[in-house]
Amino acid sequence: MSIYFGNHFSREAFQFDSVGNHWTQELVTRPEGFPMYHYLQTESGSGCVSVKGKTILLEQGQGILFAPFVPHSYRAWEGRWITEFATFTGSMEPYLKTMIGTDDYLLIGEEKGAEIERVIAGAVKLFETTPGNTRQLSMDCYHLLLLFSEGIPHSAAAQPAWDKYVRPVVEQIESNYMEDLSAEQLAKSVYVSPQYLSRLFVRYVGCSVYEYLTNYRINQAKKLLMKRDRKIQEIAHDVGYTDASHFIVMFRKLTGMTPVEFRRLHI
Amino acid sequence: MSIYFGNHFSREAFQFDSVGNHWTQELVTRPEGFPMYHYLQTESGSGCVSVKGKTILLEQGQGILFAPFVPHSYRAWEGRWITEFATFTGSMEPYLKTMIGTDDYLLIGEEKGAEIERVIAGAVKLFETTPGNTRQLSMDCYHLLLLFSEGIPHSAAAQPAWDKYVRPVVEQIESNYMEDLSAEQLAKSVYVSPQYLSRLFVRYVGCSVYEYLTNYRINQAKKLLMKRDRKIQEIAHDVGYTDASHFIVMFRKLTGMTPVEFRRLHI
Repeated sequence: MSIYFGNHFSREAFQFDSVGNHWTQELVTRPEGFPMYHYLQTESGSGCVSVKGKTILLEQGQGILFAPFVPHSYRAWEGRWITEFATFTGSMEPYLKTMIGTDDYLLIGEEKGAEIERVIAGAVKLFETTPGNTRQLSMDCYHLLLLFSEGIPHSAAAQPAWDKYVRPVVEQIESNYMEDLSAEQLAKSVYVSPQYLSRLFVRYVGCSVYEYLTNYRINQAKKLLMKRDRKIQEIAHDVGYTDASHFIVMFRKLTGMTPVEFRRLHI
Repeated sequence: MSIYFGNHFSREAFQFDSVGNHWTQELVTRPEGFPMYHYLQTESGSGCVSVKGKTILLEQGQGILFAPFVPHSYRAWEGRWITEFATFTGSMEPYLKTMIGTDDYLLIGEEKGAEIERVIAGAVKLFETTPGNTRQLSMDCYHLLLLFSEGIPHSAAAQPAWDKYVRPVVEQIESNYMEDLSAEQLAKSVYVSPQYLSRLFVRYVGCSVYEYLTNYRINQAKKLLMKRDRKIQEIAHDVGYTDASHFIVMFRKLTGMTPVEFRRLHI
């Protein structure tokens, strides 16, 4: 049963206000909520959480992140309920909503839960052995916040839909971006509709097929722009645009500047 | 010679807009500055940077972080100048000043430079092997930003003043916080003035001796408050306060709430 509290005087962007594990959880009622982001996860047994009129069962490896000042209560459900938890502060605490979103709470499943359990155990160990290592603690803190901020499942590679549809298309884009590719052709090559493929891309990659292709082309163009001797028209062609002005429009859309401005800024 | 550009569509809190190393650096002039935080470090050779009317020589392992839109130029000084660099973006980019401060530029010495070189090499390798691992890339990005945000030298343990003055005092606080300690006594025990000891603490620990002692005591009190059966007066005494109201004032100052409120919130 470990609990550690962060240093009130340190000023990392993100830091633990508290972190702990192997905690025997009893009834907690917070009619006004907790004053900062608070994460709670079941290590063993199970617990029952009431929040915003919903009742949620937290089984082993499942967790919940409460946003600040969201009223809630929780209690053991079956047998002893052992939990781990973390609360978050730091100089950038006021901006956490930008990162995590505006939901009142966020549910975490077993897959991320396993990773969170490892990070919390590491942080507890750091507090026990080298509490002055605020940098590593702050990195652990950011690691957890990133996990909360991601809608995308972690080990994408372990998902059959990734292997069957997304990966082959990513590979095609990366080896044929200089050709005239379209989202329709790419979808056809893996025997699904363009709409379905784009939904899979949004889920696994975070953007549509067309956006991924455009991003990849523009990034390749940036590399070519770092050499003084290539003309813009040539570069447009090299990254798969038959029309240089279309290339310039897309480049500007993604980077906020024209290819010439980009080159002038960098070399 | 590697350069990689981040995905324009991903929305991590912090991410690389670009990162690279083994780069043969030629003359660069940016009369309007660069539109985001930009870090440049010498891998080998040396370079000469002009910024805000100053001329700075960047030798091996030394670097400079330019704040956005700060005019500057740089060029090779002796022989070939090989550099590594990174530029920073992400959904929390607008708040980076909170983390890094408001200086126009920041100079980085060899000690941190060595760590930065490792992180950049790791990020370049990730882009080469698993570019989809945006989470690890974002963590690398945060690692660099943390290094920029710290005024405190990294391997404090390797510094003689840490070993001679700071560590013994930290150890005394951690084993005797329940006694009546003062900053004067603690300074006396290591044969320096209270002022000098506090300066060392600010440098290595980030706060004064008195603040460190208070923080340690309040954190111990928080742990004791997590048990229902201890009275506030007893806890005050257990963590070294002879006067319970002084304890309550300090507790409130550091946590924003009274011990009773803290207990009600947590258990």
